[in-house]
Amino acid sequence: MSLIDTILSPLDLKKIPRSELPALADEIRGIIVKVVSRTGGHLASSLGAVELAIALHYVFDAPKDKIIWDVGHQAYAHKLLTGRKDQFHTLRQYQGISGFTRRAESPYDAFSTGHSSTSISAGLGIACAKRLLHDPAKVIAVIGDGSLTAGLAYEGLNQAGDIHKDLIVVLNDNEMSINHNVGALSSFLSRKFSAKMLQDLRKEFGEFLKSLPKFGDDIYQLLKRSEDSFKTFITPGMLFEAFSFEYFGPINGHNLNHLIDILNNIKMLKEPVLLHVSTVKGKGYPPAEKNPVHFHGVGCFEVQTGVSNGKKSLVPTYTEVFGKAMLQLAGSNKKLIAVTAAMPEGTGLVPFSEAYPDRFFDVGIAEQHGVTFAAGMATEGLKPVVAVYSTFLQRAYDQIVHDVCLEALQVVFAIDRGGIVGEDGATHHGLFDLSFLRNLPNMVVMAPKDENELCAMLVTAIAYPGPVALRYPRGQGWGVAIDSSWEVLPIGKGEILKEGTDVLILAVGRTVGEALIAHDMLSNENISTCIVNARFVKPLDSELICSLARKISCIVTVEENVLQGGFGSAVLECLADNMISGCKVIRLGIPDIFVEHGPQKLLRSKYGVDAEAIVQATHQILARQSGLKSSS
Amino acid sequence: MSLIDTILSPLDLKKIPRSELPALADEIRGIIVKVVSRTGGHLASSLGAVELAIALHYVFDAPKDKIIWDVGHQAYAHKLLTGRKDQFHTLRQYQGISGFTRRAESPYDAFSTGHSSTSISAGLGIACAKRLLHDPAKVIAVIGDGSLTAGLAYEGLNQAGDIHKDLIVVLNDNEMSINHNVGALSSFLSRKFSAKMLQDLRKEFGEFLKSLPKFGDDIYQLLKRSEDSFKTFITPGMLFEAFSFEYFGPINGHNLNHLIDILNNIKMLKEPVLLHVSTVKGKGYPPAEKNPVHFHGVGCFEVQTGVSNGKKSLVPTYTEVFGKAMLQLAGSNKKLIAVTAAMPEGTGLVPFSEAYPDRFFDVGIAEQHGVTFAAGMATEGLKPVVAVYSTFLQRAYDQIVHDVCLEALQVVFAIDRGGIVGEDGATHHGLFDLSFLRNLPNMVVMAPKDENELCAMLVTAIAYPGPVALRYPRGQGWGVAIDSSWEVLPIGKGEILKEGTDVLILAVGRTVGEALIAHDMLSNENISTCIVNARFVKPLDSELICSLARKISCIVTVEENVLQGGFGSAVLECLADNMISGCKVIRLGIPDIFVEHGPQKLLRSKYGVDAEAIVQATHQILARQSGLKSSS
Repeated sequence: MSLIDTILSPLDLKKIPRSELPALADEIRGIIVKVVSRTGGHLASSLGAVELAIALHYVFDAPKDKIIWDVGHQAYAHKLLTGRKDQFHTLRQYQGISGFTRRAESPYDAFSTGHSSTSISAGLGIACAKRLLHDPAKVIAVIGDGSLTAGLAYEGLNQAGDIHKDLIVVLNDNEMSINHNVGALSSFLSRKFSAKMLQDLRKEFGEFLKSLPKFGDDIYQLLKRSEDSFKTFITPGMLFEAFSFEYFGPINGHNLNHLIDILNNIKMLKEPVLLHVSTVKGKGYPPAEKNPVHFHGVGCFEVQTGVSNGKKSLVPTYTEVFGKAMLQLAGSNKKLIAVTAAMPEGTGLVPFSEAYPDRFFDVGIAEQHGVTFAAGMATEGLKPVVAVYSTFLQRAYDQIVHDVCLEALQVVFAIDRGGIVGEDGATHHGLFDLSFLRNLPNMVVMAPKDENELCAMLVTAIAYPGPVALRYPRGQGWGVAIDSSWEVLPIGKGEILKEGTDVLILAVGRTVGEALIAHDMLSNENISTCIVNARFVKPLDSELICSLARKISCIVTVEENVLQGGFGSAVLECLADNMISGCKVIRLGIPDIFVEHGPQKLLRSKYGVDAEAIVQATHQILARQSGLKSSS
Repeated sequence: MSLIDTILSPLDLKKIPRSELPALADEIRGIIVKVVSRTGGHLASSLGAVELAIALHYVFDAPKDKIIWDVGHQAYAHKLLTGRKDQFHTLRQYQGISGFTRRAESPYDAFSTGHSSTSISAGLGIACAKRLLHDPAKVIAVIGDGSLTAGLAYEGLNQAGDIHKDLIVVLNDNEMSINHNVGALSSFLSRKFSAKMLQDLRKEFGEFLKSLPKFGDDIYQLLKRSEDSFKTFITPGMLFEAFSFEYFGPINGHNLNHLIDILNNIKMLKEPVLLHVSTVKGKGYPPAEKNPVHFHGVGCFEVQTGVSNGKKSLVPTYTEVFGKAMLQLAGSNKKLIAVTAAMPEGTGLVPFSEAYPDRFFDVGIAEQHGVTFAAGMATEGLKPVVAVYSTFLQRAYDQIVHDVCLEALQVVFAIDRGGIVGEDGATHHGLFDLSFLRNLPNMVVMAPKDENELCAMLVTAIAYPGPVALRYPRGQGWGVAIDSSWEVLPIGKGEILKEGTDVLILAVGRTVGEALIAHDMLSNENISTCIVNARFVKPLDSELICSLARKISCIVTVEENVLQGGFGSAVLECLADNMISGCKVIRLGIPDIFVEHGPQKLLRSKYGVDAEAIVQATHQILARQSGLKSSS
């Protein structure tokens, strides 16, 4: 029987002698690599945190003690050690276990995570609550060095040091976030050699001082003070001591004995402690160690070689199309700037960054700063394009309102992963953006029907003298031909793709393609639908919509966004404001729940934003119509 | 002629000999005190930054050089020095100059501000743009120590140090934000005596080391290294040097000679520089120096004494009623926690903080952290109430989505200053909250019709097992009696306040009071209106609304929120989803623009969210109705 099979909970882990723990780590790595090779997932970070997970559960008593894994994508070993071994093969699969930590999934998941840098704030909240409830349990926040770039982490550290509660922060330092790290702080943390050198120096110099003859009180005071001051030598600890944290490290995060010893010591302290642990991303699986960026979030691959399974599709992703268009446009537009928040690969900006390094800015995991930074650039007449995932743009909502929209600055938001993203699940779907962006004065909000229109919209956005949000989905386009150059689209104008008389189908973004499929299905039933690509959620093409609605009273709207306040609501507002009453409107979109993880296609079907759903809604609205007619 | 009268732009300032600048500072203080005593405004911070404004404009060449005043409320002297002397008496008045910096107001206002902590990010964006445009102009961000608490400032510092661009950050350190400062960093910055001591020590010890006989290479190396290490003694500079900023200070921010000399030196550097300036909030006006919290944002007062003009109204503000209710409820509910982000006075929580200091948490200017911190507490079964201004809650949008709503944690958002706030203007109105909150799954959104209902809603929110947003306006209530205890309201149920047959008026929050006034005005015209207090924006009382809409087809909705995606849109969604077509709906609310500053009453009238507007809309909808009838 393997060691891991004996572990149903951390209680079983504690029965294993220390000497066998490295073998357990090997077993865990084997399972993680095997499963992720089949399911895809966050491989490199989880491999880097295997010993950390073992040591934490060996020393602390979860779920009484609370362990919070920042982001949660590095917590696969934690899942295996906390009773989820048998479900682990369902990782990120529909109805399987989540790729992040979820309170609903396990009592060992102390906080639900997915977005970066929440662990210190949440941990501090838990620690304060525990003290009020007279519960002596420990709280441990495990945070990566990349996550420390975000202001939220800093805000948490700042209050934790201030109120001086019993909180352990483990800094899991692999010298990279998803790609490499940016930020002054990061280069500061990586000064390892010099830190070590200076620690030796401190000791050596202390001895030297002690050996000196005493010159009286002045020198004695001097010596005493200088000893204190040595505490803040140029070490990574310096920063954390500034925040009133007791600093330990850096220690090797793959040496289980050291980890366990130091955690046992730290457990006794009753103050804010920061343990700095050095780990290797991808540790123990050579392909991932060699290429941790690729294996950060990876699809299926062959375990032996690390080579991705399946052939590369000929149809490019929206991300790739966007990246190419940016590269092409930057050649003729010297004012075009690209800004990303730690996602150069994810947003397709690597080619741009290589061709135009001086016009490319990776601000780190710092969406708030990225947006205000872009606003600053826009005041100088440059044209910054902030490329960001929809879900992460939520972090910068106030900066969009206050720093960009209020002055109508020319910032383009290229919003990738709008809509259902798939396996990353509830924390990562981009389902609120159309709603939260269209509320804002001066903002133009558009979404392309396909990858070619994405390019035209990018050109349109860059030409527009104000803020524009351009939102497109995760994954492949429809495989349409990409024009070699693109015309600026008229702002606020939609297009009729299919003329029809029975039902008016108003679609936006990816759902336009679904509407076209539905059109053909319905044609076969002799139902005539008028299909409109709205293009703009704001300003809405009220002229077109109203003129059609005056002719066709059965309307279906469809969007891959929440139903509250989204595109469909904008259509209702338009009809009401233009005094068009008497229409029947069915709005298709995401209902008022958080959508779970699963394949995009499955979720689109389940939540009714695909062609089938449009067909059904059309039947339904026609049935109502004829019901009304027959009853009247 | 006074000195200030000779200054039409900073060019004129530069002609004044240094020796006369203190007299100029006195004149400026005199004008600021006189005007603010009549208009109200941010007195204490502006008085603290008079010499800083003079010195910056004396040394740098604005508007070519860009000076960004963080928040902008300390920039009154800057306004007086940059051509706005003659308009200064219109400060914060309708159609007068803004209380913050606005690009639209002056080319000297390099960035529009209002919310805290944007200056470093914006400044870095401008600096990067200037380098790309080969423009050697300097960029100066002036930021208060309180503003450094926010993660956005940290994110900006972090990237600025990293990309090492030419940027000057002036830390205006008055050891307080609005109230006192919180955070480990703040107590760190205030270690002034010890910093000074250690600087002396550094010098003294350096001399001592130099005087020692040489013991060979080892000691020589040791000495060399230790000299380097002294650079990072426990001084406030330590932190900023960790961010690769060149640190200068702290210097006296009221000594014009020193300020000008050091700024002249710093001007020559081409790297990130932080100048730490110590100032006194309220400087030069004894009442404000004595009570800087009161004079942070102050109403009209008598210059001689500093005593507020006008008698205190007998009608309490919503803020006061909320604060009292929290105090009352905390007595019987040991799990009730209050969280504020640097606004204990502004949110009415001072009495709570004094009675229950262990259950009161001021997280500093750190709304993101405050919300995630509260989420952490809620996981332990406590009931945190996050009291925050609507406009500042925008900073925590992602934390509301990701850390609270996703797990339906029991966090109450007590949202003060919802709606039109008045003289603080565009950056401070709370006009988006109903829209951005009602999009979120699991969130309950309510707004009380008066200050007594606020208490009932607070009780309801605290009793509810999930997230609740409770939004109320700035300023006085309606003067209704406050019950001594309150019943929990049924979630998602509105109430009919007046029965009527001609027009259905659906109101929420403060506008319910306006609707009641309109009801009486319309009754006099023999128009019968049904007045509904919706209470809940989410879940909407669709049963009540639908049953009424089936009887009364003319509907007016009214809310003090943007029209896009707000309460009125929720009503339209409800009607469409329930297949009620044929209604005519006029939605009253804030149109799709940023609202300027001015008196609340005036702005409510201008933007059509008062009784008069409801009467008009009622006439309009009845005219449409009769037009339809006569044409049919």
